Amino acid sequence: MQQRITFFTIGVSDLEAMKNFYQEKFGWKTMKDENGIVFFKLNGFIFGLYPKHELAEDIGVPDNGNGFKQFSMAINLNSEKAVDELFEDFKAKGVKIIKAPEKVFWGGYRGYVADIENNYWEFAFNPFLKLDAAGNVQSHE
Amino acid sequence: MQQRITFFTIGVSDLEAMKNFYQEKFGWKTMKDENGIVFFKLNGFIFGLYPKHELAEDIGVPDNGNGFKQFSMAINLNSEKAVDELFEDFKAKGVKIIKAPEKVFWGGYRGYVADIENNYWEFAFNPFLKLDAAGNVQSHE
Repeated sequence: MQQRITFFTIGVSDLEAMKNFYQEKFGWKTMKDENGIVFFKLNGFIFGLYPKHELAEDIGVPDNGNGFKQFSMAINLNSEKAVDELFEDFKAKGVKIIKAPEKVFWGGYRGYVADIENNYWEFAFNPFLKLDAAGNVQSHE
Repeated sequence: MQQRITFFTIGVSDLEAMKNFYQEKFGWKTMKDENGIVFFKLNGFIFGLYPKHELAEDIGVPDNGNGFKQFSMAINLNSEKAVDELFEDFKAKGVKIIKAPEKVFWGGYRGYVADIENNYWEFAFNPFLKLDAAGNVQSHE
């Protein structure tokens, strides 16, 4: 089996509002938006938004989750300054900032924001992580 | 902001057991495994395993989740036969099969398995999704 994913899908309560969040606050463009599902094409895979009861039903599990969903997503940037600038932009756009950018024990710099349904995004500068020109992860020291 | 992610991290209860699951059942190799965090390099980003209370603490939210975590991950394959063969392999390896492969209303073919902490993986053939030779998503009809 190849070491890759094709889709990462979040179950959402309000599909339209969540689509608008990622379009307006992150500035992302949809790849597909029809039949009650929204796709954003990221680096080689699709980030999907799908109503949570339908996602649970498709998998075949009860839709009984609440609280912290036990996952986070991260986007790495090239410098601490880039992280700071992004948080200024998020602040101006009214995005919920969970943790303002700060230096962390592992030697990097990062902050967290939440989307409108409390999925958490970390924005970080990590001096030990090598990315190629396109932003794909190459290696970790 | 670029339309990509760098990390997708799952909060786990048993780091060692979860690492073993992805190594033994998925056949994946770690990129980094030290200081209580495990990284697998996937297609241009890192799939991380991190103790869930530490992940919650790092974000700065209560670790109060339970039940369905409202996300799924998917790996697309090139044919229905490839999906069937993979499920035979999962069955032989004792992986928990949530939904055996079947045709679905949107015209594809898919099944679901769970890892040992009930994170759900879909394995699918989707005739409408174009992948390049490396398996990166190109377009969706």
